[in-house]
Amino acid sequence: MKHFITQLTQLQNPMKITPADFRGVFGIMPTPATEDASRWQTQQSVNLSETEKMVRFLNTAKIDILATTGTFGEGATLTWPETQLFVDCVVQTNKRSRPLFAGVTTLNTRDTIERARVLVDIGVDGLFVGRPMWLAMDDKSIVRYYQDIAAALPGVPMVAYDNPVAFKGKISTEAYLELAKIPEVVASKHTGGPALAKDMRAVGEKMRILPLATAWLAAAQELPELALAAWSGSVACAPTVNMALSQAILAGDWQRAKELSEKCNWAESAMFVGGDLAAFMDYSIQIAHLRFAAAGLVNPGPPRPPYLELPDNYRDGAIECGRRWKQLESEFSA
Amino acid sequence: MKHFITQLTQLQNPMKITPADFRGVFGIMPTPATEDASRWQTQQSVNLSETEKMVRFLNTAKIDILATTGTFGEGATLTWPETQLFVDCVVQTNKRSRPLFAGVTTLNTRDTIERARVLVDIGVDGLFVGRPMWLAMDDKSIVRYYQDIAAALPGVPMVAYDNPVAFKGKISTEAYLELAKIPEVVASKHTGGPALAKDMRAVGEKMRILPLATAWLAAAQELPELALAAWSGSVACAPTVNMALSQAILAGDWQRAKELSEKCNWAESAMFVGGDLAAFMDYSIQIAHLRFAAAGLVNPGPPRPPYLELPDNYRDGAIECGRRWKQLESEFSA
Amino acid sequence: MKHFITQLTQLQNPMKITPADFRGVFGIMPTPATEDASRWQTQQSVNLSETEKMVRFLNTAKIDILATTGTFGEGATLTWPETQLFVDCVVQTNKRSRPLFAGVTTLNTRDTIERARVLVDIGVDGLFVGRPMWLAMDDKSIVRYYQDIAAALPGVPMVAYDNPVAFKGKISTEAYLELAKIPEVVASKHTGGPALAKDMRAVGEKMRILPLATAWLAAAQELPELALAAWSGSVACAPTVNMALSQAILAGDWQRAKELSEKCNWAESAMFVGGDLAAFMDYSIQIAHLRFAAAGLVNPGPPRPPYLELPDNYRDGAIECGRRWKQLESEFSA
Amino acid sequence: MKHFITQLTQLQNPMKITPADFRGVFGIMPTPATEDASRWQTQQSVNLSETEKMVRFLNTAKIDILATTGTFGEGATLTWPETQLFVDCVVQTNKRSRPLFAGVTTLNTRDTIERARVLVDIGVDGLFVGRPMWLAMDDKSIVRYYQDIAAALPGVPMVAYDNPVAFKGKISTEAYLELAKIPEVVASKHTGGPALAKDMRAVGEKMRILPLATAWLAAAQELPELALAAWSGSVACAPTVNMALSQAILAGDWQRAKELSEKCNWAESAMFVGGDLAAFMDYSIQIAHLRFAAAGLVNPGPPRPPYLELPDNYRDGAIECGRRWKQLESEFSA
Repeated sequence: MKHFITQLTQLQNPMKITPADFRGVFGIMPTPATEDASRWQTQQSVNLSETEKMVRFLNTAKIDILATTGTFGEGATLTWPETQLFVDCVVQTNKRSRPLFAGVTTLNTRDTIERARVLVDIGVDGLFVGRPMWLAMDDKSIVRYYQDIAAALPGVPMVAYDNPVAFKGKISTEAYLELAKIPEVVASKHTGGPALAKDMRAVGEKMRILPLATAWLAAAQELPELALAAWSGSVACAPTVNMALSQAILAGDWQRAKELSEKCNWAESAMFVGGDLAAFMDYSIQIAHLRFAAAGLVNPGPPRPPYLELPDNYRDGAIECGRRWKQLESEFSA
Repeated sequence: MKHFITQLTQLQNPMKITPADFRGVFGIMPTPATEDASRWQTQQSVNLSETEKMVRFLNTAKIDILATTGTFGEGATLTWPETQLFVDCVVQTNKRSRPLFAGVTTLNTRDTIERARVLVDIGVDGLFVGRPMWLAMDDKSIVRYYQDIAAALPGVPMVAYDNPVAFKGKISTEAYLELAKIPEVVASKHTGGPALAKDMRAVGEKMRILPLATAWLAAAQELPELALAAWSGSVACAPTVNMALSQAILAGDWQRAKELSEKCNWAESAMFVGGDLAAFMDYSIQIAHLRFAAAGLVNPGPPRPPYLELPDNYRDGAIECGRRWKQLESEFSA
Repeated sequence: MKHFITQLTQLQNPMKITPADFRGVFGIMPTPATEDASRWQTQQSVNLSETEKMVRFLNTAKIDILATTGTFGEGATLTWPETQLFVDCVVQTNKRSRPLFAGVTTLNTRDTIERARVLVDIGVDGLFVGRPMWLAMDDKSIVRYYQDIAAALPGVPMVAYDNPVAFKGKISTEAYLELAKIPEVVASKHTGGPALAKDMRAVGEKMRILPLATAWLAAAQELPELALAAWSGSVACAPTVNMALSQAILAGDWQRAKELSEKCNWAESAMFVGGDLAAFMDYSIQIAHLRFAAAGLVNPGPPRPPYLELPDNYRDGAIECGRRWKQLESEFSA
Repeated sequence: MKHFITQLTQLQNPMKITPADFRGVFGIMPTPATEDASRWQTQQSVNLSETEKMVRFLNTAKIDILATTGTFGEGATLTWPETQLFVDCVVQTNKRSRPLFAGVTTLNTRDTIERARVLVDIGVDGLFVGRPMWLAMDDKSIVRYYQDIAAALPGVPMVAYDNPVAFKGKISTEAYLELAKIPEVVASKHTGGPALAKDMRAVGEKMRILPLATAWLAAAQELPELALAAWSGSVACAPTVNMALSQAILAGDWQRAKELSEKCNWAESAMFVGGDLAAFMDYSIQIAHLRFAAAGLVNPGPPRPPYLELPDNYRDGAIECGRRWKQLESEFSA
């Protein structure tokens, strides 16, 4: 099955990216949706003009590394033709200005490899790879999965997507030790929490373990040599704020980093209203759409099926979160 | 994206199937694999001659309703072209001899609808529909998901696939009450356990709730008017035994049903060696391949990536399970 | 087994408490610990002078209803003699100034009833009742558990403790409907999230469903007749702030309630640093000790075994949370 | 709080038990209940004459090591006075004929230590120790918990109880490596599954990892030097059969071991009817009562609150399981 974008972009070769190149913000973006994206009848739900606009402002803000089609970026709900269309648009707009990692999580190894090949062809620099989730995978299977993808696409850098809720279990420290031996696996979007420091120490310089941006400062103070990059899901809300935090941390300016970290926490925390942290994750797509809309930089449009419903008590928090990011961004980009 | 099988089969129209038509065994089949199916390089992993052979013996045994591409039938690990090839082969062999439901579970509503349309075009009589599982879905989302599919394919019967481990949560009794109002949702492959009788009572005649075959007798004795069909994952191991159990239960011959139920339990139970029931489900694909191979009626070939690894302590149990089915089948088909 | 506090307090009879009496803040308190409380050798780990001080300031602030020995109040880690000593101290200090509910969650029905009887004897007005958690309980078992306690202590009001993480599953809406028929079950500490509004509507006036204080405003705007009380785990951090929020909501002053709600969110949210919401709950005892200490009103002392370890990345957030409450409290109590 | 059994038994000193002493069957027994044990009003629910009878036949069968008050032996639902009464009865009947391990799982470290001291005083030889389960414990906390108990009771052997469903998570291989350094932790009742061989290899001779009896043969064939003992929950159903299996495995008579293992599997497997393996564990207490009653050697009486309810579809399987054990036992003890 060949991909449908026949006119391949004539860009320079993919960048060679190593763990050391992960320095700063790994910014995960949403996939802006057309007004009719919540309807099952819609065949093309990607809002390309908003996509272009978004990639431009992420470039302007100099977000260090860009990533597409994770969880809230709707890796699950885009059709494959839409994914290609969207990623092609990002590639064409980005023009290799920043390294770009495209999400290729599917229900099996071969589909992920197929998608990876097409998207590398289209011009992405690396892959953002979660694992099949119909059944949970054990350590051996997880390692083999990444080995297989690396074998199929030698030299193409991968960021492992370690999301225990989505993929039915955390990547264990032991599995990280094996993944760190695969040259292609250069980084991991980590879930944070108690395992963060342990996993960072375990893999050392061989892989860049990425904490969430709001957990970055603590990690950087504990492991300054290793915590040189973080992931953020709010670069499309407030790119300037994210980069200010990054600069403060990388400069070792703990005082300023603390102030910025607190501001980011203040913004993010608005989402967690309602009390049930366990259920919160189930609505992260719907919440993200409201959050980005309220932040005002990009019009994310409505969510795509089947992730459409959102209980009222999450709604306000999501909107408030976006508003806070908007307030911070206007403060910082002034 | 059009499907690649251009020469559509010229068969009679799809059967109209109601809950009352679910009487007997809903037999879920594996997807036989080629010898190289475990390699990520393999592009076409469906063993078509084994598929034909399998469908023929399921027809000969008069399994009441056939189903494809569930969990062990590798709905997750087949590529979409392979699914079409496989289902087309089943359709051509089955020749509408038995009603055929094809699994169309994907990561989102639109992909499932797209697959459903293509497979109905190819000639299946109904759909076997699990839900997207990247994020867990709440009751409202589950109901809307099935409503959307019904709206997209009016009149096409669906069997809901209620697998709490795979799809991150059971369909609640309240959600069943809503699903029962959708005419297209004619049945549900139920997970069994404490909710079985409750859910059966809740939906009554409006939907056929299918217990596992080994749990059928108890359900039939408790709710004889409602427990008129069951699902089985072992029809490709021992079709004759499955049908004998079905006949005994539907004839109300409890004594014979009890004997047969015990024999089936004896066979199935060999799988559960090793002690950790919670982990067992994670290996159901790998276990199924060993089980079908040992039963000897169909050559299932090796599993497909990423579900390849199997701890030793599950291996023996899986093989023993298949051997027991083989023994029973030879006893009954004599 | 008789309790060891022989000289029973001579106080007026227990208050008769109905769902309608739940109006305002249900404030859950910690159990202050002695300096050596983390050692397994310690036999009496309750800091009684801090307990007195705490109850006095909660009284001064007029927290509507008081509760002891939940999760962070270390219902799990106190010995039974310590629980009696602590609750007796709270009773003697409180002097029925505010209704007092004591936590009596154990591993079985009879132990909970025994504890309940002794604590009612000591002088508590009601019971705060989680359920046995060695094995998960189904709906029927949950309902019977509360029925049994009500039968053993007729007329003693109970607040059901609905904590899905601690007690292995949420109380379902169907179970709530049954619990609402038990006159003794007057309220429930709810987990919040998607089920909150649904459960509130289901039980109506028959039981007071309590959202978390930071989720109260949204609930009050949606269901103003029903959302008349909320639970708070931060009354020992900032009682004045909690009461200010309560007054604004009960007065229907949405503008002021919004301001206050945001301030509370700002304080609470500092805890959620680190990224892994799923793991966060596992450390709620340790986090609470740091939080209360930083807030400065009560000296909670160190945590009790086995809940002693805390990963670094939760530590800072916990302390920051306490600091924010301190800042808010000094602002409001000025 | 002192225990109420003042007249301590005059028996020889506790046996010194090492990992090497774990050879054969670690047999976990139920706690026989009086006819009124399901009522919350019952104060003394232990059937002492049945207890004596049971310990005598376990002695006659020469079950290698005895254990009390695990999950189905109702560690959760006995009151503390009942536990002492029951264990005292077992001790007095057993007369140090076989090493005896008593379950001391509670909600915290100090209660477990207190119980351990009293039960060692009463005359048990070792402790069977699960962990507090109100909140999940991480690796560090698990290790410290066992270290603390060992420090409080130096020289008293412990069997770690590794039940992921009950105690909210498996003991990791890394934690096992630390536990193996504690001389008192001589063995672990393992959950089986994929981690079994890995954990056995990790700890080697320093700790005896016990598989479930039905998984023992496979483990013994893979790791003959290490798999020298197993745990069984069916010694009170069919002690002779359990010992026959043990002798065959320890003699390396694989053929006979296979036959016996299959017979045991046939008996055990009857329980798993109903289809929902995930829910099965929640009912293990209720199922055990029916199973032991049907096996006929001991009268277990009814279950204790709150674990009283059992869906119909588990009932038949539980009874059938007991019947099969009865059939096997009569065959083997003839």
